[in-house]
Amino acid sequence: MTCDVQPIGTIYSPFGEPAGTPIQPVFSDDTPGRVEVLAPYAEGLADLDGFDRIWLLYWCHQSPGAKLRVVPYRDTQEHGVFATRAPARPNPIGLSCVRLLRIEGNILHVSELDILDGSPLLDIKPYVPEFDSFPTVRSGWLAAKRTEREIADDRFHRI
Amino acid sequence: MTCDVQPIGTIYSPFGEPAGTPIQPVFSDDTPGRVEVLAPYAEGLADLDGFDRIWLLYWCHQSPGAKLRVVPYRDTQEHGVFATRAPARPNPIGLSCVRLLRIEGNILHVSELDILDGSPLLDIKPYVPEFDSFPTVRSGWLAAKRTEREIADDRFHRI
Repeated sequence: MTCDVQPIGTIYSPFGEPAGTPIQPVFSDDTPGRVEVLAPYAEGLADLDGFDRIWLLYWCHQSPGAKLRVVPYRDTQEHGVFATRAPARPNPIGLSCVRLLRIEGNILHVSELDILDGSPLLDIKPYVPEFDSFPTVRSGWLAAKRTEREIADDRFHRI
Repeated sequence: MTCDVQPIGTIYSPFGEPAGTPIQPVFSDDTPGRVEVLAPYAEGLADLDGFDRIWLLYWCHQSPGAKLRVVPYRDTQEHGVFATRAPARPNPIGLSCVRLLRIEGNILHVSELDILDGSPLLDIKPYVPEFDSFPTVRSGWLAAKRTEREIADDRFHRI
């Protein structure tokens, strides 16, 4: 079975290459960006402007391929890729909770981005604290993390 | 551009049809389920067991197709599909934050499921409160929602 996924737009950011990109939106301060939704899908944005934050699902188009074990940005030891947020995944689908500033037609102005410029957009979902916020759950190796790194290098994009 | 997405496993749940399925994991109590990761990917699960919750990304295989405006489960009025979590999306990729109970080899035992039985698994990511938890942000129409519905009907699966 193949899942037929087609981009519904493009994400534009100041980050043209992996090195120097924030590793998560939370480390991105007010970095601005925009999401251009293809015109045929713009109607689906109705009422999204009431949400402070949105999930962007996108294709990590610069991922050179999957690795099952990786040394993630916040550690110096290997972990299984599914225990990390690294882009080197079997299906390189990125998930970022960005801040929604405003919507103009089919353009979303956003900030707190950790996404590479030109990433194909796959989906947008509203962030709903009732569904998505679990402030106190355990976070495994990340709770005992060995680096405080907030900015990426190119480790997942070397061929 | 097409994104080549291949299932990496299957999600099994007690929910064989949309009607009666919880609309989000938070409404699912202790509903148990399991995630079978295909053997070649099992190595990527290393160290995931330290996380209380995980994101499952999956293909909404029973979605009959995209609608750009929907009446979501928690309202009686239409909203743009990207302002809802409804499965009737252009790319029907589901996103659920489930509870991870334990891992046995390539099998994840989970609870708090809102996922239909047999859904193809696309990705697993750890839930990290530092990255994912925003308890106080605005949630648009959902903050003024007109129903307290917690269980789905078949509205998104009628042909």
